Amino acid sequence: MYKVKVFVTLRESVLDPQGGAVKRALHTMEYKEVEEVRIGKYMELTVNSTDNVEQRIDEMCSKLLANTVIEDYRFEIEEVVPS
Amino acid sequence: MYKVKVFVTLRESVLDPQGGAVKRALHTMEYKEVEEVRIGKYMELTVNSTDNVEQRIDEMCSKLLANTVIEDYRFEIEEVVPS
Repeated sequence: MYKVKVFVTLRESVLDPQGGAVKRALHTMEYKEVEEVRIGKYMELTVNSTDNVEQRIDEMCSKLLANTVIEDYRFEIEEVVPS
Repeated sequence: MYKVKVFVTLRESVLDPQGGAVKRALHTMEYKEVEEVRIGKYMELTVNSTDNVEQRIDEMCSKLLANTVIEDYRFEIEEVVPS
């Protein structure tokens, strides 16, 4: 069994209005040191063992979990021994 | 200057209908090995150097970035040397 952590972020060139709103809110709260905020998605998948786990996770990301036109993704796979 | 990565996840006990929908979509796409999907948020903050960075980030998370009633958060702080 695997625990997979998927990080989906907006591409550098894509405007992030939600991040801009969070930054302004933080400035209003006197956290003026915040220079930039970018918002992405974080997903945790629990996956049963199969062949080609890495390749299959990559497919899931590119086909469903991320919109590769505007988003980048990366993932970490961790093997879990059920207790 | 610091690069801060913030991970916000739903608490274990909180139902995640969005994750359930993603799981069903993956099953429809024949990725039947996916056992569970939990969806969270991932934020990247660029923060200018100040005192008590860690404490201030923790405050930002608990006051704005996460809803601590239903969400947990954790963060990683990385010092960046501007090139």
